[in-house]
Amino acid sequence: MRLDVVTIFPEYLEPLNVSLVGKARARGQLNVHVHHLRDWTHDRHNTVDDTPYGGGPGMVMKTDPWGDALDDVLADGYETGSRTPALVVPTPSGRSFTQELAVELSQRPWLVFAPARYEGIDRRVIDEYATRMPVYEVSIGDYVLAGGEAAVLVITEAVARLLPGVLGNAESHRDDSFAPGAMANLLEGPVYTKPPQWRGRGIPDVLLSGHHGKIARWRRDEALRRTAANRPDLIEQTDAAAFNKKDRETLSIMGWGPSADGRFWRRPEAVEE
Amino acid sequence: MRLDVVTIFPEYLEPLNVSLVGKARARGQLNVHVHHLRDWTHDRHNTVDDTPYGGGPGMVMKTDPWGDALDDVLADGYETGSRTPALVVPTPSGRSFTQELAVELSQRPWLVFAPARYEGIDRRVIDEYATRMPVYEVSIGDYVLAGGEAAVLVITEAVARLLPGVLGNAESHRDDSFAPGAMANLLEGPVYTKPPQWRGRGIPDVLLSGHHGKIARWRRDEALRRTAANRPDLIEQTDAAAFNKKDRETLSIMGWGPSADGRFWRRPEAVEE
Repeated sequence: MRLDVVTIFPEYLEPLNVSLVGKARARGQLNVHVHHLRDWTHDRHNTVDDTPYGGGPGMVMKTDPWGDALDDVLADGYETGSRTPALVVPTPSGRSFTQELAVELSQRPWLVFAPARYEGIDRRVIDEYATRMPVYEVSIGDYVLAGGEAAVLVITEAVARLLPGVLGNAESHRDDSFAPGAMANLLEGPVYTKPPQWRGRGIPDVLLSGHHGKIARWRRDEALRRTAANRPDLIEQTDAAAFNKKDRETLSIMGWGPSADGRFWRRPEAVEE
Repeated sequence: MRLDVVTIFPEYLEPLNVSLVGKARARGQLNVHVHHLRDWTHDRHNTVDDTPYGGGPGMVMKTDPWGDALDDVLADGYETGSRTPALVVPTPSGRSFTQELAVELSQRPWLVFAPARYEGIDRRVIDEYATRMPVYEVSIGDYVLAGGEAAVLVITEAVARLLPGVLGNAESHRDDSFAPGAMANLLEGPVYTKPPQWRGRGIPDVLLSGHHGKIARWRRDEALRRTAANRPDLIEQTDAAAFNKKDRETLSIMGWGPSADGRFWRRPEAVEE
């Protein structure tokens, strides 16, 4: 996979040399190019922004540096054999970045990231490249950052760990929170390792029982409890058919019950408690 | 504000020297300390992880390095006059990190970040420090990362830009997506700057009209359109009383209507189109 990032803070992308992404680059699984947007400015001050049409606070990133930079980056990629690029624009106004979208992006051969600063990039840049390739305007969450670079690190890491051979142990995707399968929509519960006692705290007996069925059940109950406590929205989104008899008992103890529309809802009397 | 980060990838935190957070540090508004967790290991291999009790794939971060590291980091902070720390643990199993939570964290004087790798930190570490200080287990979004370091960068940036004096222009919070006020729950629409023509693309006439009322209305309509298209969940969460008569017309044209429970929903016939 080829990744290009065009940014006014190339040093912010240093983590792409570290850890999982850094190792994937070293093994040739990822081909990463970070470009400085100001290299495509032509004035003495290397200007990339100007005041917004219609007035208001903040500055808007200009069309020309972005258009010239993206044209050159795309030309370079095509010349070296890359094909079918997609443009990824991190923005709080985008659709939500999810694990499903990470999977979709991980199947593309070439991602070009355009992280904005200030109030965003002149809209015509997005409109122009949307005529040539898929454009993903994505938001990594409902909070405001100073720029898109942190989002590029998040998206790159979520995507890179899904590439074949990047994670050492292929099994370790299986129990991920948000992974498809039995744990879809459930958060992972607590984990423990040696020693069995630490500062007066032990570990749950069931984990020492050697009984695989009981351990799996305990883990699923803990996942249900954690999800109901921290992310009730995930329980509400789940088709009730995904919950077996024991799941329903666990949910019921926490005050959840099935509703007519085939979902689970926290019972009003439980909320009032 | 004092920030401590304990990590096995200190070099991943290099962006804390750059841009907004780097400038806030240089001005003395942020006092940042990055610590290497392996400095608190005592074996030849600097081991920080072990196999999970109960079996299964992946590794769990051990109690001792974390407990010893956090004790020393806390002692150092207290000695230099910091008070009332809070522990922030990025984890996909946490509650959602939102702009509201960013505001809450920005009002605390001292945040200690514990980004995990592998399957997470032994639960007893969280339970232990929860008896001494608030613990925020937070998820920055519904996707899986290789570790918590990218989340630390995201949370730190979202929090730092809210500190007094960190953003140059105090006004530029006002129109943020997710900012409290008139634009709460609405995404920002498109922005434009000079030149008025670029590669055959112009800008919307209204932005050149000089008519502040019409410009404000156009921006609000664009925000409604963008939100309805990319994040219908945000429209559905909004109390219908927040939409004025013109908002309702705009939403109606896009196929949304009020329901009995005081929210707006996309009309079924509109979904089928």
